[in-house]
Amino acid sequence: MKNQVNIPWEERPADSQAPIWRYRHNPVIKRDSLPNSNSIFNSAVVPFESGFAGVFRCDNTSRQMRIHAGFSKNGIDWEINPEPIQFLLGDAEFVHSEYAYDPRVVYIEDRYYVQWCNGYHGPTIGLAYTFDFKTFHQCENAFLPYNRNGVLFPKKINGKFLMLSRPSDTGHTPFGDIFLSQSPDLKYWGEHRHVMGPAAFEDSAWQCLKIGAGPAPIETAEGWLLFYHGVLRSCNGYVYAMGVALLDLEQPWKVLLRSQPYLLSPQTNYECVGDVPNVVFPCAALRDDAGRIAIYYGAADTVTGLAFCRQDEILAWLKENSL
Amino acid sequence: MKNQVNIPWEERPADSQAPIWRYRHNPVIKRDSLPNSNSIFNSAVVPFESGFAGVFRCDNTSRQMRIHAGFSKNGIDWEINPEPIQFLLGDAEFVHSEYAYDPRVVYIEDRYYVQWCNGYHGPTIGLAYTFDFKTFHQCENAFLPYNRNGVLFPKKINGKFLMLSRPSDTGHTPFGDIFLSQSPDLKYWGEHRHVMGPAAFEDSAWQCLKIGAGPAPIETAEGWLLFYHGVLRSCNGYVYAMGVALLDLEQPWKVLLRSQPYLLSPQTNYECVGDVPNVVFPCAALRDDAGRIAIYYGAADTVTGLAFCRQDEILAWLKENSL
Amino acid sequence: MKNQVNIPWEERPADSQAPIWRYRHNPVIKRDSLPNSNSIFNSAVVPFESGFAGVFRCDNTSRQMRIHAGFSKNGIDWEINPEPIQFLLGDAEFVHSEYAYDPRVVYIEDRYYVQWCNGYHGPTIGLAYTFDFKTFHQCENAFLPYNRNGVLFPKKINGKFLMLSRPSDTGHTPFGDIFLSQSPDLKYWGEHRHVMGPAAFEDSAWQCLKIGAGPAPIETAEGWLLFYHGVLRSCNGYVYAMGVALLDLEQPWKVLLRSQPYLLSPQTNYECVGDVPNVVFPCAALRDDAGRIAIYYGAADTVTGLAFCRQDEILAWLKENSL
Amino acid sequence: MKNQVNIPWEERPADSQAPIWRYRHNPVIKRDSLPNSNSIFNSAVVPFESGFAGVFRCDNTSRQMRIHAGFSKNGIDWEINPEPIQFLLGDAEFVHSEYAYDPRVVYIEDRYYVQWCNGYHGPTIGLAYTFDFKTFHQCENAFLPYNRNGVLFPKKINGKFLMLSRPSDTGHTPFGDIFLSQSPDLKYWGEHRHVMGPAAFEDSAWQCLKIGAGPAPIETAEGWLLFYHGVLRSCNGYVYAMGVALLDLEQPWKVLLRSQPYLLSPQTNYECVGDVPNVVFPCAALRDDAGRIAIYYGAADTVTGLAFCRQDEILAWLKENSL
Amino acid sequence: MKNQVNIPWEERPADSQAPIWRYRHNPVIKRDSLPNSNSIFNSAVVPFESGFAGVFRCDNTSRQMRIHAGFSKNGIDWEINPEPIQFLLGDAEFVHSEYAYDPRVVYIEDRYYVQWCNGYHGPTIGLAYTFDFKTFHQCENAFLPYNRNGVLFPKKINGKFLMLSRPSDTGHTPFGDIFLSQSPDLKYWGEHRHVMGPAAFEDSAWQCLKIGAGPAPIETAEGWLLFYHGVLRSCNGYVYAMGVALLDLEQPWKVLLRSQPYLLSPQTNYECVGDVPNVVFPCAALRDDAGRIAIYYGAADTVTGLAFCRQDEILAWLKENSL
Amino acid sequence: MKNQVNIPWEERPADSQAPIWRYRHNPVIKRDSLPNSNSIFNSAVVPFESGFAGVFRCDNTSRQMRIHAGFSKNGIDWEINPEPIQFLLGDAEFVHSEYAYDPRVVYIEDRYYVQWCNGYHGPTIGLAYTFDFKTFHQCENAFLPYNRNGVLFPKKINGKFLMLSRPSDTGHTPFGDIFLSQSPDLKYWGEHRHVMGPAAFEDSAWQCLKIGAGPAPIETAEGWLLFYHGVLRSCNGYVYAMGVALLDLEQPWKVLLRSQPYLLSPQTNYECVGDVPNVVFPCAALRDDAGRIAIYYGAADTVTGLAFCRQDEILAWLKENSL
Repeated sequence: MKNQVNIPWEERPADSQAPIWRYRHNPVIKRDSLPNSNSIFNSAVVPFESGFAGVFRCDNTSRQMRIHAGFSKNGIDWEINPEPIQFLLGDAEFVHSEYAYDPRVVYIEDRYYVQWCNGYHGPTIGLAYTFDFKTFHQCENAFLPYNRNGVLFPKKINGKFLMLSRPSDTGHTPFGDIFLSQSPDLKYWGEHRHVMGPAAFEDSAWQCLKIGAGPAPIETAEGWLLFYHGVLRSCNGYVYAMGVALLDLEQPWKVLLRSQPYLLSPQTNYECVGDVPNVVFPCAALRDDAGRIAIYYGAADTVTGLAFCRQDEILAWLKENSL
Repeated sequence: MKNQVNIPWEERPADSQAPIWRYRHNPVIKRDSLPNSNSIFNSAVVPFESGFAGVFRCDNTSRQMRIHAGFSKNGIDWEINPEPIQFLLGDAEFVHSEYAYDPRVVYIEDRYYVQWCNGYHGPTIGLAYTFDFKTFHQCENAFLPYNRNGVLFPKKINGKFLMLSRPSDTGHTPFGDIFLSQSPDLKYWGEHRHVMGPAAFEDSAWQCLKIGAGPAPIETAEGWLLFYHGVLRSCNGYVYAMGVALLDLEQPWKVLLRSQPYLLSPQTNYECVGDVPNVVFPCAALRDDAGRIAIYYGAADTVTGLAFCRQDEILAWLKENSL
Repeated sequence: MKNQVNIPWEERPADSQAPIWRYRHNPVIKRDSLPNSNSIFNSAVVPFESGFAGVFRCDNTSRQMRIHAGFSKNGIDWEINPEPIQFLLGDAEFVHSEYAYDPRVVYIEDRYYVQWCNGYHGPTIGLAYTFDFKTFHQCENAFLPYNRNGVLFPKKINGKFLMLSRPSDTGHTPFGDIFLSQSPDLKYWGEHRHVMGPAAFEDSAWQCLKIGAGPAPIETAEGWLLFYHGVLRSCNGYVYAMGVALLDLEQPWKVLLRSQPYLLSPQTNYECVGDVPNVVFPCAALRDDAGRIAIYYGAADTVTGLAFCRQDEILAWLKENSL
Repeated sequence: MKNQVNIPWEERPADSQAPIWRYRHNPVIKRDSLPNSNSIFNSAVVPFESGFAGVFRCDNTSRQMRIHAGFSKNGIDWEINPEPIQFLLGDAEFVHSEYAYDPRVVYIEDRYYVQWCNGYHGPTIGLAYTFDFKTFHQCENAFLPYNRNGVLFPKKINGKFLMLSRPSDTGHTPFGDIFLSQSPDLKYWGEHRHVMGPAAFEDSAWQCLKIGAGPAPIETAEGWLLFYHGVLRSCNGYVYAMGVALLDLEQPWKVLLRSQPYLLSPQTNYECVGDVPNVVFPCAALRDDAGRIAIYYGAADTVTGLAFCRQDEILAWLKENSL
Repeated sequence: MKNQVNIPWEERPADSQAPIWRYRHNPVIKRDSLPNSNSIFNSAVVPFESGFAGVFRCDNTSRQMRIHAGFSKNGIDWEINPEPIQFLLGDAEFVHSEYAYDPRVVYIEDRYYVQWCNGYHGPTIGLAYTFDFKTFHQCENAFLPYNRNGVLFPKKINGKFLMLSRPSDTGHTPFGDIFLSQSPDLKYWGEHRHVMGPAAFEDSAWQCLKIGAGPAPIETAEGWLLFYHGVLRSCNGYVYAMGVALLDLEQPWKVLLRSQPYLLSPQTNYECVGDVPNVVFPCAALRDDAGRIAIYYGAADTVTGLAFCRQDEILAWLKENSL
Repeated sequence: MKNQVNIPWEERPADSQAPIWRYRHNPVIKRDSLPNSNSIFNSAVVPFESGFAGVFRCDNTSRQMRIHAGFSKNGIDWEINPEPIQFLLGDAEFVHSEYAYDPRVVYIEDRYYVQWCNGYHGPTIGLAYTFDFKTFHQCENAFLPYNRNGVLFPKKINGKFLMLSRPSDTGHTPFGDIFLSQSPDLKYWGEHRHVMGPAAFEDSAWQCLKIGAGPAPIETAEGWLLFYHGVLRSCNGYVYAMGVALLDLEQPWKVLLRSQPYLLSPQTNYECVGDVPNVVFPCAALRDDAGRIAIYYGAADTVTGLAFCRQDEILAWLKENSL
């Protein structure tokens, strides 16, 4: 990720001491930003050229799940293509995609890789690359179904590509651990390692049902900073909140720190009310050279929110609040 | 339906290109419009004398489901009887009604027929007629339990009365197809035909769990226009939205067109927040000679909303957006 | 039913005082009596010409549910057609049958009527008639889905045909009451009446989950004798047993007597072990002029059993053992 | 309870005729009143010295359930200790508490007793006493798991302590009756009596799934006034509302009156939107010598609301609205 | 327990090295031993006068659960009263019993105490005493519902009566730990202690869903020997097997040893086939002065089996096979 | 596979015309063949040296799932090691196995490969190789959890190893399709292809819930012959039967033929009664040069059965009975 751009930013409000704070003009992307969009959320943003590009989950009014490319000068005002991405054949012999949702984007070596939940006889992890966010080359699905929340690391480690994912079932999966898989070529995957599972209810209930990786891990001197979501099941459904963990730099399946409290939970009206009430779901993070971080997250499965924090403060907070 | 009355109407807002738009003063009927009402929704309205009459689902503060008669000059300001309808014996030998909800009303030949979900050892389709909305004569239940969303056509076809319904189970039914039944006399029913079922998740997810007929079908030169509801199950419960279909004039179990996108989904606060969040549930439609249509719909199982559209625009939209 | 034939019969074993007893050579029909049959059970038998005819549920080795005609001289040794019944159009405009199971047969006025669970966008009650068990004319389905265990009375009452049924859902329905419907013509049905539901667990647990009519009711001077099945749900699944009730002659939706104990429950190996363990499911009964009764019942959803009793003894037992 | 203090109070709004009305500045306690609180709700308040003391359910941002002591001059502005209560050994040989929630507090004879849902290999009823709300002595758990909503009567009856409770299971229990247990010493309990269960759906649907006692019963000349919660299960989850009952003074397991309508149901935004939408859950009530009553209730499992009524009006309403 | 009687006994078969072996004439009590019995199982036996007495679960052919007294000279041939026990008032002010099942019997000080699962607005632990197995005095229920498998220790410890139980829910409970409660007088209970829960699936799957105490604990020099049942849930239902544990003599909530393997699992036809397939459920044990033990257990919820072992061998085996 | 050995064989019984028939001395391996075995089933056998070797699922009496090596001269009489296989590190950096079950074995190039369901934070596909069935080298797990029924092809195709598997969830999975994955090195896997899913209920109910590969595919001139299991869910649990399919030789994810009827379903006592009633589960097949095939299958999750057929007859039958 090239950090010379000016990422979206607001300073912490005067009355707050929290490690993270919301953008005051949230939601940054509204549900009806496209002519036929029902909702735009759980989307990915990266620095691109002099501004930003992104891949957005845009459910249309048939409630079909599609991903669209978009561009922005400032990371706040977006022009999203009204048409979904049409993939070309990349490293795959065939392309089959019943639906596409919850994209992530990461820059590795020379290109941008998109990962998303791809419908192939069930949800699995789709993979594609682009140089320009105009032409996208689809690769083989990384894993067998049923899987969601595939998240690539932004560089190879020990000569291998690494991907986090959360194996699941065919529906509203009531379980979910984060695993890490390794690949020499982004085509064949193995050496699967368990990273972490839900926390005990008594210890950290917001993440006691299932968890899943959020934005691509951010490299720091102390480890990979991983924002992730955790889920609690109340008598009225799932509640999705956001936490953060620190993974070992060389063996990132080893968890060094993991937040016991959530960082952000659904509390505003746009997070609590919508197609799926009570969801905060991070999918992208921008960090600049000053260590400022802007996180894009889906809210209530309906709109996109933006939140801000500082890397050093998050690390300090994490050390004091680790499970 | 006699169309000489002035139906409620507002023009499409300047900033909208949608085929349907909400009444700006929604909810048109509030939850506490009666002294003991918990909620008023999923209700039926017809032209009556120089204005309108209606049958309203009014759940009281014991959360008992009851239907009440009401009157209005303009279709917007309503006087609803504080007491539920007390049925007299009509063509039935006995009357038994543990509860009554989700009424529809239609005028056929010489009288108004009320259909509703009637509690008789489970939900089934109750039937009654009235000439004046003061005296109601209850007929035999049309079908065996368990059934909901019984909707009569506004005239006989091929000498028979026709009724749509959605066979169900005893609870929060997780399935639901629309069937059509035929009767020579509104007492005995047969010749049941399947009309349509839920759509495939990949094609039209808002209607992939179950569907049910809404207002009485509206006759057009091209077919019967049927507004209906469809349901999606998210991890946090059911989401009810509204779509539209066109049925064959002579053999109305044949579906000519069916909307892939929804027409209206829960997006406003009064549709998203209430006793059952995320519900848009149409039960009545008024059409005038100019082809303007006003649709009454339940919102969040709590209040009643009103939405407007034009018949010709809906038909054109439907042709372009059919499954 | 013409009673001049010799029905199958064995006297009560010397060591038994039970009101009903099993045929000592049970199962009377084995699972593999046809070349491709997986199981033969829940089948219907009537006197026919100088012997007996029947309609048999024969699931094939694809586990498809089909009904076959069969003939027997003595009601014990059967020749079942290896091919399923192919229905002709009778009083219906169309024929649609995804599957067929659990038939009943009854003679009314001049012909034999077959009722069965017919697959038409879900299970409902199929209806057909035959004069010779060679040619079968299919009528309109009696009811909307979802329904099972449709059972006609053997004569009209008050000028109407009567049918018992058990409205259900789309799967292994965990509820079930017996209702009665009326028809002037076997085509249109109405005047639905509740007959009886499951018993309270504390009173009669074998019938506390659901119940369903078995053979066609048998007319006696004191009322209609109805053998029926009841279901208990244990931690290891459903247990089907058989009981008996007495219905009013003129208003047969009124239950005069109903057995608190079961008459027969799964206790033999062929009733306890098979495709569905622990099932006794009666579908036919023969009564001769001497008041002897032979009951055919499905055992473990795999084979067909035969049990014997006497009408006067059953009535006496029922009076002493009524709920 | 000593009534000489000035309880929080607002007169009924001019436009209301309801038996109960909300505090206009609700929520009286906000979710983030403590540095690390996710939510503060389902809490107990009693007169204490010249003002009030309370025990508050404060879930922290790890979504751990904890109870905290707090103090107030006026019952409206609260200082809640940021640290959870640390219990000392009281009459118990051991203390074990995996979590603590939904406290009640009552003054009996010479001290304040706290009851709460205590995690001991599952939820059960924890018990402690304090003289000063600074030092708390934990007693033996009153009952075996799994139990919730333990509520002590404010005085001994017939020489015994009495406690209401609602036996449950290990999760989001879909059933729940109120029972009463008796104890000579608050250590050993027996003589359990059934008080009341859910109402029939047809009669009073808001309380048809489960019910549980709310604040400590209030003694009146006519009986014990018990505010309680009832639960309805919609297709989108549980809805918690508040009703009231009158129990016999001497044999309080005998229910004299029980409200068919609810008194208060989730209708405001802070009751409908939050961590668990649609919850009104009363845990404490203050009554002064003038018969004015202030009720503290949890709203949406997120904040604390306050509602007002008068004892004589409630009793009159209850007489006219009893099941 | 008085050990001078000759308990039923068979030596270990020559070809067996197992720690326990079945009676070769099992089932020792058949399902139809009473005129109206559907099944006789999960029953309790104690030495009485010169022979044995017992309390038997006899479900009748209405599938009502009842307990009956019975007598035997040799513990093998039983005369069971055809009528259920009629309880008199003992130490309870009232008697209420919707059903009664799974009895245990133990002799303490001067009388025999019966414990069983008693229906009082749900299952709980009923308690009664008798001197002669003819007159039974019913006491207060020990605990609140919902509870099963209440088992008294055969003597007071530290001046208190002790009872094991397994708190449950209202149905086929999918969880279950063993707890211990204490009482000064068998009327009021408290000081509840967790004894043990299900084992981890990886360690001992036969007891990974739920467990419950079996016969009254047997005192040995090394601790209380507790035979208990454990349950595994397969895709086809629950499987009940028997294991053994050793509890501390003075603080019997402390588990000294607990068998990783089962002692007996359903393997014979009468254990695998019946009203509930795959159940071995011990409820009584006789030990003589020679350390021989005869265990009575319910098989397939249908009949009663008998198994034999030696105390010293069981202890040795337990030490080598403890979790 | 080296075919020069004499595989177990019996000719078709004279009274049978079925394409497959059981060994008359079934079960060929009994449940208690090891000192501590609860059951021996779902096991794999291959030709080895002058006889046969195998890997057996032996659940011990703790109901722990373990795999054991065994040897036989004739494929019928087996010596199974009483100790489970202890794996050495092969191509994996680490070994982690919470449990092991349902093994398959196949010979490729120079060694025997074992695949099984391996417990690594959930079920996944374990992989190991051996030259002598004494020393086993464990490789990396092939896939992420949750997966079962991993089955390798007996040779590389287009230079890649191929494995079938059935992605699942964490429990008694109610769904299941067969997929194929490809690998250059048995370490990294990709190019996942869907092979086939459950059949429609109306077409072939025995395989309408889920399916999974059985023995390693057998190469024939017309394609790969794949015996597999299919599952039906009755109201009393799952029923497992065996069918057969023919896959394309070069692109084996293409299904050429697939049996509509089952080949073998649970009908004998040892298949219908046991730890899991009604299971036939094939895991190994031996074919000799004459085209005779012996299939080993688990029966009732308790014992191992043997069935026989001829390749030419099976192919002919399959052509006539394909879906």
